[in-house]
Amino acid sequence: MSDTTTMTTATIEADPTVPIIRITRDFAATPAQLFRAHTDPELFARWVGPDGMTTVLDRWDATTGGAWRYVASRDGVDFGFHGCFHEVRPDRIVQTFTWEGMPDGVALETLTFTDLGDGRTRLHAQSLCDSFEARDGMLRSGMEVGIDQGYAKLDGLLADGEIGESE
Amino acid sequence: MSDTTTMTTATIEADPTVPIIRITRDFAATPAQLFRAHTDPELFARWVGPDGMTTVLDRWDATTGGAWRYVASRDGVDFGFHGCFHEVRPDRIVQTFTWEGMPDGVALETLTFTDLGDGRTRLHAQSLCDSFEARDGMLRSGMEVGIDQGYAKLDGLLADGEIGESE
Repeated sequence: MSDTTTMTTATIEADPTVPIIRITRDFAATPAQLFRAHTDPELFARWVGPDGMTTVLDRWDATTGGAWRYVASRDGVDFGFHGCFHEVRPDRIVQTFTWEGMPDGVALETLTFTDLGDGRTRLHAQSLCDSFEARDGMLRSGMEVGIDQGYAKLDGLLADGEIGESE
Repeated sequence: MSDTTTMTTATIEADPTVPIIRITRDFAATPAQLFRAHTDPELFARWVGPDGMTTVLDRWDATTGGAWRYVASRDGVDFGFHGCFHEVRPDRIVQTFTWEGMPDGVALETLTFTDLGDGRTRLHAQSLCDSFEARDGMLRSGMEVGIDQGYAKLDGLLADGEIGESE
């Protein structure tokens, strides 16, 4: 049994036995389009995070062994995030994640893109924390708003034909 | 309660509630010396792993956002390992770790160096896996031999005066 919250379209689950959050979301996109949405810096900055936030990437090398950092801003308040890319391949991205407001907190994130056919793809996003306290703190942070609104922006970019399968 | 195995000098604990392995080991070294032993590529290759293994680094950028890969060989058999460095600072290194024999298995490793005074430092090494099965598989892999023999080699380098506090 998992504690499941169903969003507009995303499902966010807290694993009962390990400190993991699992997000599942279907998109009207191919795996290649979702991969580009998560690796192309200009595309990523346009959809990540909640409405009203402006995201500026100041480090971005979405390759195996690369690293990333961005700052999200709203009403003059900045939120920095950074990590490294453990592996980047067409069906799977593994990366670390820190919100700089808690600089020693680190999550290990795994994204997979599963082809559902008919131009649809299921995104699985797993965040692994090193304690249940840290995991539950993430869940209480309001993350679901950023996830839901961010993925809605990504839906919009896909619907507008702004994300091809390759550059 | 933890399941604790006491090695010659290292302690390896399997956390009962989260899929974490914790290793604790004291060294006759300063934190700066232990930091160099874990970040200087030539020094690291000389002590990591069990006796009889030869380690060759083919990627090594021990800085925040950098990456690493090495191949350990014995009797013509190669074992590849790689990851990225999430954070590298004098008292703490956070990095990812994959043994390429299980290419989708990823652990998040956190090393800290705690000054005990009198030229002694305690190393804490935490490995976080995304399931208890993966964590227990690591414990059954014979990792304790590499840890114990590797740290004994590091003791030897320190005793021989081969690791200064800076380059």
